[in-house]
Amino acid sequence: MIIAMRSDATEEQITEVCESIKRYGYSPHIIRGEERVVIGAVGHGDNKDHLHSLRAVPGVENVVPILQPYKIVSRELKPEKSRVRVGELEIGGSEFIVMAGPCSVETRDQLMETAESVKRAGAQVLRGGAYKPRTSPYDFQGLEEAGLKLLAEARRLTGLKIVTETVTAEDVDLVAEYADILQVGARNMQNFALLKKLGRVGRPVLLKRGMSSTIKELLLSAEYIASHGNDQVILCERGIRTFETATRNTLDLAAVPVLNELSHLPVLVDPSHATGKRSLVLPASKAAVAVGADGLIIEVHPRPQEAWSDGPQSLTPADFARVMDEIRNYVRLESRYLN
Amino acid sequence: MIIAMRSDATEEQITEVCESIKRYGYSPHIIRGEERVVIGAVGHGDNKDHLHSLRAVPGVENVVPILQPYKIVSRELKPEKSRVRVGELEIGGSEFIVMAGPCSVETRDQLMETAESVKRAGAQVLRGGAYKPRTSPYDFQGLEEAGLKLLAEARRLTGLKIVTETVTAEDVDLVAEYADILQVGARNMQNFALLKKLGRVGRPVLLKRGMSSTIKELLLSAEYIASHGNDQVILCERGIRTFETATRNTLDLAAVPVLNELSHLPVLVDPSHATGKRSLVLPASKAAVAVGADGLIIEVHPRPQEAWSDGPQSLTPADFARVMDEIRNYVRLESRYLN
Amino acid sequence: MIIAMRSDATEEQITEVCESIKRYGYSPHIIRGEERVVIGAVGHGDNKDHLHSLRAVPGVENVVPILQPYKIVSRELKPEKSRVRVGELEIGGSEFIVMAGPCSVETRDQLMETAESVKRAGAQVLRGGAYKPRTSPYDFQGLEEAGLKLLAEARRLTGLKIVTETVTAEDVDLVAEYADILQVGARNMQNFALLKKLGRVGRPVLLKRGMSSTIKELLLSAEYIASHGNDQVILCERGIRTFETATRNTLDLAAVPVLNELSHLPVLVDPSHATGKRSLVLPASKAAVAVGADGLIIEVHPRPQEAWSDGPQSLTPADFARVMDEIRNYVRLESRYLN
Amino acid sequence: MIIAMRSDATEEQITEVCESIKRYGYSPHIIRGEERVVIGAVGHGDNKDHLHSLRAVPGVENVVPILQPYKIVSRELKPEKSRVRVGELEIGGSEFIVMAGPCSVETRDQLMETAESVKRAGAQVLRGGAYKPRTSPYDFQGLEEAGLKLLAEARRLTGLKIVTETVTAEDVDLVAEYADILQVGARNMQNFALLKKLGRVGRPVLLKRGMSSTIKELLLSAEYIASHGNDQVILCERGIRTFETATRNTLDLAAVPVLNELSHLPVLVDPSHATGKRSLVLPASKAAVAVGADGLIIEVHPRPQEAWSDGPQSLTPADFARVMDEIRNYVRLESRYLN
Repeated sequence: MIIAMRSDATEEQITEVCESIKRYGYSPHIIRGEERVVIGAVGHGDNKDHLHSLRAVPGVENVVPILQPYKIVSRELKPEKSRVRVGELEIGGSEFIVMAGPCSVETRDQLMETAESVKRAGAQVLRGGAYKPRTSPYDFQGLEEAGLKLLAEARRLTGLKIVTETVTAEDVDLVAEYADILQVGARNMQNFALLKKLGRVGRPVLLKRGMSSTIKELLLSAEYIASHGNDQVILCERGIRTFETATRNTLDLAAVPVLNELSHLPVLVDPSHATGKRSLVLPASKAAVAVGADGLIIEVHPRPQEAWSDGPQSLTPADFARVMDEIRNYVRLESRYLN
Repeated sequence: MIIAMRSDATEEQITEVCESIKRYGYSPHIIRGEERVVIGAVGHGDNKDHLHSLRAVPGVENVVPILQPYKIVSRELKPEKSRVRVGELEIGGSEFIVMAGPCSVETRDQLMETAESVKRAGAQVLRGGAYKPRTSPYDFQGLEEAGLKLLAEARRLTGLKIVTETVTAEDVDLVAEYADILQVGARNMQNFALLKKLGRVGRPVLLKRGMSSTIKELLLSAEYIASHGNDQVILCERGIRTFETATRNTLDLAAVPVLNELSHLPVLVDPSHATGKRSLVLPASKAAVAVGADGLIIEVHPRPQEAWSDGPQSLTPADFARVMDEIRNYVRLESRYLN
Repeated sequence: MIIAMRSDATEEQITEVCESIKRYGYSPHIIRGEERVVIGAVGHGDNKDHLHSLRAVPGVENVVPILQPYKIVSRELKPEKSRVRVGELEIGGSEFIVMAGPCSVETRDQLMETAESVKRAGAQVLRGGAYKPRTSPYDFQGLEEAGLKLLAEARRLTGLKIVTETVTAEDVDLVAEYADILQVGARNMQNFALLKKLGRVGRPVLLKRGMSSTIKELLLSAEYIASHGNDQVILCERGIRTFETATRNTLDLAAVPVLNELSHLPVLVDPSHATGKRSLVLPASKAAVAVGADGLIIEVHPRPQEAWSDGPQSLTPADFARVMDEIRNYVRLESRYLN
Repeated sequence: MIIAMRSDATEEQITEVCESIKRYGYSPHIIRGEERVVIGAVGHGDNKDHLHSLRAVPGVENVVPILQPYKIVSRELKPEKSRVRVGELEIGGSEFIVMAGPCSVETRDQLMETAESVKRAGAQVLRGGAYKPRTSPYDFQGLEEAGLKLLAEARRLTGLKIVTETVTAEDVDLVAEYADILQVGARNMQNFALLKKLGRVGRPVLLKRGMSSTIKELLLSAEYIASHGNDQVILCERGIRTFETATRNTLDLAAVPVLNELSHLPVLVDPSHATGKRSLVLPASKAAVAVGADGLIIEVHPRPQEAWSDGPQSLTPADFARVMDEIRNYVRLESRYLN
């Protein structure tokens, strides 16, 4: 931690800051610049919060942390890439992973038709929401457990793995009975009660980046899950909120190599929510492969114009098959494979 | 809902959109411009989601909603301002409300000392977090029920009302046993399970705006609580996330009169989280009064430099007393009072 | 400047960074933390750019500047507030300044009618654009010199000072013949050729914050003007671009006290462009006074619904008179006056 | 244009809006919904500004434009993709274009060394700034005409085309004497005097997206150049400003296919400014190819750690050669070629 003093800070103030640093269990190192004094606080104390609070002390201009606040999920701690196992499937390895399916589970027919078509096109995992976090209370909220049962049936029929969202800590155990991978949606990325609960469940977690969350915050949310006991976490970039309105969100593709530098966890990209527009899913998917993503999660619906949610961004099964065909070549260039 | 067709849309596509509109229970009205056809969908159907999905239909350029999606919380439905009652206290009336206290409940001494000082300065409500949603799992997470007990003791001692955060639906009943007002933090503004639960609890709710939430989304979250049975909702502007880093967040003060135009619910401002800096709390508080806020929620700590969280933005009791003294004159100009 | 090394940086890399620091004319100070080495570069060299480029050196994680990059405009250099003189008028002193008038100069009648009404209501300066930077090439671009002549005529008639925008370095001399204060619009805040030219003109400059500019960048743009010879600069907060669409921009009122802490220059607020909506101008104006602004710049048009630009945010003369009446009380609370 | 009336609008207000629409030369079409009246204004008048100003009329809630405001640059007007010719080079065709070189022209040696190495690696165009728009007046501002002369010399030596920035309308003719392509930097995207001047110069223009500009604003700035007589415009995505600080800007790669849908102009990507970090240039470049960009503009410096600007994001010649090698395969997948 670096404490920058104001240019008019007195010697007494500098001494007081040094005393506080010692009191909190760190050792102070003073650098006297020509205009300003800077103090480094060195050590491994439990009082990082207290160091931050030094910003409240007279004479202090700023407190700048040097260390990254996450540990278990960081590359510094574990340099080799992690692989998350879902049965025989391995996420983060040389197989490129595609999760596909409808935004919401709506009906048996809709789900089975979608599951069969995405299986045929080469997807390994079926997505579909049974619990839907919707901005308006008047929008469709999901079929809940009935939706989970349909997902389980689709798995039996197709052999696809199942990923589905859990929106509250209370539902985690129930969802975990049916799903292979538990998804945390963007709005819940900082629902810490949910994250802690997921840290104690024996299932991989797909953690979506919050729509205004920094990369650091995403990694800290992953650290919540990992530090509570579950290191089977898959990160997912799904677009952030900016001033641009031509797309639903702004897909931050550079976040993928940044995450790969900072963390060993696998990283997926969701081109559907990121762009919000069917015609952009193909180019965004190819770019996601090129940027080093370990996989994709894509919305597919047999009849997008009749979807109960997210129709404009859903691909038809035919569109999806074409996306799969096109990305295969890019996957190969990245020395990976996709059946 | 307005559906704008592409300039190259065919007559067949226009007809198909009109047929879909009818099928969903609305009536289509065509306007033929010189370059483009626009179709209005009129009616009160239950299929708003389906109309949105028309964006997925060939020939459609855009779908623009005309009606606001919230109802119960809107001024159109209820033109007169609402007052939320907390015992003898009334929020949204002519009394200006100040909630003050530490970010976190840390110790008995810290809380009682703060409570007495904010009471003396004129605050009506004591704030203090017992459950803390912290970005890092390694930061202090709150005293939990022990903190709630201390808050209740502070109420007995001072007569102040208590507002405290609940971070998960599961804790709502427990927190409601102790608190007069239940707070939803910015990170939980779209924790819909929590909002639904709060809709069924007999306690006023202080709903903070999410750090990247639009005003419309804030009102929809309030609508969640209200539509599940609890219309005792107080809105709170606490700064939004932008590119500016000189302040912790960007305080969106214009949101207060906008909220007052769109909704009848009381609106508070949190100058502490919005600015993140002690010296900015006074000017931001005065401005909040001037812009028509119904009250303030301010962080106060007896020794900010020793705070376990949010030290840099916490006022000392003496600072706080000065803020109260200064804002009284502004409150009077707004034809309100503050004892 | 603080150079943070990566946790896996070698001793050779640390030595190389220290050698580079010396080569650029600074002295290195090493702090060895438990996980990481941090190096301070102390001194007053001309090679700040080179220090930044150390981020490109192997083993370096980050380079963090400690000193503010602006000097002439900073409070550290000149602690007392500056006053900008425009004839007998003083901006930044105890008189609260109001600049008012139409977005664009349209016709003689429109301008004289507006000038007389804003004069009557108490404004000291007439605003009006003769050169209009418009997003679309098909929008009205201003009357140019004919507009300047009308502004000069309005000054003769009313005694008001004139502020008007100059959009290019080439026009500065011409505009300076007519105007008392030269305005730099938000889109030109980083038009450095224009800023340099304004540094050599003998007229006060009203410098508006760019719509996505940080406070630091605003001060650096002011530093451009000042370092080229003209320290008569007035800053203006006019809203920044964010994700929120309920208002035209997000008015960053906390920027006013932040600017007042960092700089001695006077600070104005433009509530019209910031909010984009007539009904929000009054509350935003009161709040601007409360937050410590030295004045306001407000759009007024005799018939807003017929304005050639910015109609929705323009006040009628009657609205404006009411705003002036209401803010007078707030101005008094700030120990200032407004006739 | 669609005018949405407030739910409490009176019949008189509706009639008045219709009368105004007629007075401005459009015809009104009323749609009466159950809660609200919506009025379409149909026609091709010159009074679009006046229609916008209807938002200032009592009873009006909102005014929503339906038509895109740009014409010449739009795909609707010209469905086939445009190719910009620079001598024998064609931008926007099947050849993938790479522009590379230093941020600033610093010395003869630096430039010639870079030019030869990027030529060898396969670039077709040399970039290099002679006029530098720098945030701080104390940063290096460019060699000006001496830099232009060096660029011209590098062209003679290598046969590379030259792209360089012009920061003011006054310099356009001088820069055009030396450069093959004139660059408009992000900070000048809305310097309308510069854009108009570039509309009258016989040289292709590389127009960079402003750091907080929407895609619509970028196209309107292109429309400025085109409507003043020069349709040889190349668009360039270079990252936008968001809350994320892990990268210098947020590279908005989805903007490329969006621009390709809306406009026929060629689109380049600048991975260096977008990411600000050397290690991210390769993945961002591959992704730019995959997303359909017509080319790249990349910063290369023989010794990045000694660069006078933008060192951290500059590639060494060896890095650059590797990027070229790797993207060639991606270029081929897009059915394009790069020698």
